[in-house]
Amino acid sequence: MTPAEDRTGAEDRVARVALTWLAEPGNRTVWTMVQSAGAVATLRQLSAGDFPESSLRAAVISRCADHDPRREAERALARAERVGARLVTPADAEWPAGVDVLATLELDSRRQIDRNTRPPLCLWVRGDPPVDHLLHRSVAIVGARAATGYGIHVTTDLSYGLAERDWTVVSGGAFGIDSAAHRGALAAGRPTVAVLACGVDRPYPAGNTSLFERVLDDGLLISEWPPGAEPLRHRFLIRNRVIAAATRGTIVVEAAARSGATQTMGRVTALNRIAMVVPGPVTSAMSVGCHQLLRESPQTRLITGLPEALDEIGRIGDHLAPRPRGPEHRRDLLDEDSAVLLEAIPARGAAGPEELAASAGMSLRTVLRRLSLLEAAGLVERRDGRFSLARPGRTAPGADR
Amino acid sequence: MTPAEDRTGAEDRVARVALTWLAEPGNRTVWTMVQSAGAVATLRQLSAGDFPESSLRAAVISRCADHDPRREAERALARAERVGARLVTPADAEWPAGVDVLATLELDSRRQIDRNTRPPLCLWVRGDPPVDHLLHRSVAIVGARAATGYGIHVTTDLSYGLAERDWTVVSGGAFGIDSAAHRGALAAGRPTVAVLACGVDRPYPAGNTSLFERVLDDGLLISEWPPGAEPLRHRFLIRNRVIAAATRGTIVVEAAARSGATQTMGRVTALNRIAMVVPGPVTSAMSVGCHQLLRESPQTRLITGLPEALDEIGRIGDHLAPRPRGPEHRRDLLDEDSAVLLEAIPARGAAGPEELAASAGMSLRTVLRRLSLLEAAGLVERRDGRFSLARPGRTAPGADR
Repeated sequence: MTPAEDRTGAEDRVARVALTWLAEPGNRTVWTMVQSAGAVATLRQLSAGDFPESSLRAAVISRCADHDPRREAERALARAERVGARLVTPADAEWPAGVDVLATLELDSRRQIDRNTRPPLCLWVRGDPPVDHLLHRSVAIVGARAATGYGIHVTTDLSYGLAERDWTVVSGGAFGIDSAAHRGALAAGRPTVAVLACGVDRPYPAGNTSLFERVLDDGLLISEWPPGAEPLRHRFLIRNRVIAAATRGTIVVEAAARSGATQTMGRVTALNRIAMVVPGPVTSAMSVGCHQLLRESPQTRLITGLPEALDEIGRIGDHLAPRPRGPEHRRDLLDEDSAVLLEAIPARGAAGPEELAASAGMSLRTVLRRLSLLEAAGLVERRDGRFSLARPGRTAPGADR
Repeated sequence: MTPAEDRTGAEDRVARVALTWLAEPGNRTVWTMVQSAGAVATLRQLSAGDFPESSLRAAVISRCADHDPRREAERALARAERVGARLVTPADAEWPAGVDVLATLELDSRRQIDRNTRPPLCLWVRGDPPVDHLLHRSVAIVGARAATGYGIHVTTDLSYGLAERDWTVVSGGAFGIDSAAHRGALAAGRPTVAVLACGVDRPYPAGNTSLFERVLDDGLLISEWPPGAEPLRHRFLIRNRVIAAATRGTIVVEAAARSGATQTMGRVTALNRIAMVVPGPVTSAMSVGCHQLLRESPQTRLITGLPEALDEIGRIGDHLAPRPRGPEHRRDLLDEDSAVLLEAIPARGAAGPEELAASAGMSLRTVLRRLSLLEAAGLVERRDGRFSLARPGRTAPGADR
């Protein structure tokens, strides 16, 4: 067959599944080989016992011991058909372009966990919409499983608001923040995407089965691991890179100290995606990880709600978060002299123009002109020649502290 | 008299009080004149109607209309003696050197409020300790008057801890965060300093009278305004610069949007003092100003408690805040292979060495060697040839999220 067929045909699909089974998804060596020689040739080379890297040799040998990778792949594809899942590869129109940015991720390749950071060779998908349609305008919301009521509340608000504005919410399938992220968007009647670290036919945890079914109504379950795959702990770390890469930005709402959310954010910033963190009470263990990220990673942005989230992920000038306004905002309209004069007016009682001129350090003429303007603006009240703050604007001394 | 006497004698003291009465404390023009010609000569020049700046002319004329500045000053000194307050000038040994850094503050001098940012000409003080003794190692804690239970709790903790470590806590005299700052330090049996925007003989607010008395037991009340002075609103903004300058750093615990705490922090960072902000629930109006500072001012540091506060204000390497540790910290001691292997062990049930070699992508030999080490470390348990996570380390899949 010609190389062209080789990279798009059935053989290529089988080879990609087999290679993902031979080494963990994202394996740097395997991905590099596939990029240059294609999946079929790479599988042929590895099956022939030709290994460019020793750690890969160990993995492949141990897995090939009593299994034929090609047969494993065909078994996986058959099972996928039975459970209504499909395989998506870069050759498919719906392949999410975002994940290919992982090719640029430069990490400490001596750390085994960082050797599995290359783009997926293929994705297993359940759900009707084309993957790229849902992910091309998406935001990830992730965080602690042991979330607090505060975290659930903030997550649901953010997720609902983002979904309402046609952002696809992406998360894992865990209890806590992940679940709240899906529920918020679903409540807005918008689809979500759950990226799993196990087979899409048996999403983990089983306690979220009904939630996964609601996700499947209009959304997607995605995984790099074939149907039937177990949710092994290290797979969550490998999975996290896909969530980081497939979305415009990632929001961490609650995270314990040194949790996986911290690791995810490392990927997010390394990929130049937008890393957003919601602060919380310093008395809450579930916000320790968030505050740690804000203290230690200069790229992470503190967000307090939807407007700021939209501000961060929207195109420049697209969404502008309204600056929070204090009780003083009516004063912003005043020129500097009027503002200072207004502040010279005693909080309790009233003062005459001469006293005000003295305490504000202005000429009597200026004071009298300003006072009539302030009176017209309804900020001060005149009572027999003396002036006091108008009721709405009234604040006691020290209000400015 | 000789210039030397001129700058230290009784005449100089009277002149400084008179000048502070003629223009608001911190007035740039007056301070500059005093620096070059001395206070006595400056007062003589202004009284003679010789004004280098028009806005100053207006102030002085309006105030001199029916008062003699020198007599006002003598009256203030007499009243101070009656109420047990003393005047402190740069000529006194106890003058707090920190405030002189205000000479370097460069702000928008077209804004009237920024014209009053120069060092004080003199300070009115009540309380026994020398001012410099208490302020040379001090931290300011300020924030909202309408503080929440959360803010009061965090403030009291911080203040108590800082006081215990011999840091003098400095604040204003307002309700809410200011009061909690004083109470926390007093509870630790340490003195505090209240910097007021009114006369030290009639501290505002009256509702804090008993607190001010406790402050006076071992600490100080300080003000730039003479005994009897009213707490006019704009004076709090002028006062804030002294709190910022006199301390090593300032902590804002709770602040409403665009509150005076924000303005104070502008001064703190402009003076290269340490600006620290405590985050809070994004659902709390009293944390909006804090989050605003953290979002908009890159110099402000997020702190979550005493260790981080000490870390920021302490000399480098003096206090090192312990990095928050997650449940994974025992794993930190492991080499990369062992860590990955540990993560390959299923959360529920057990697995044999071959399976682990396959899922972790390692040779069987490596796996067997690591497993015995992990077992010895008490991280995994062996039961008839299969391995499971040891109880203490046990966490369900996704725990790393």
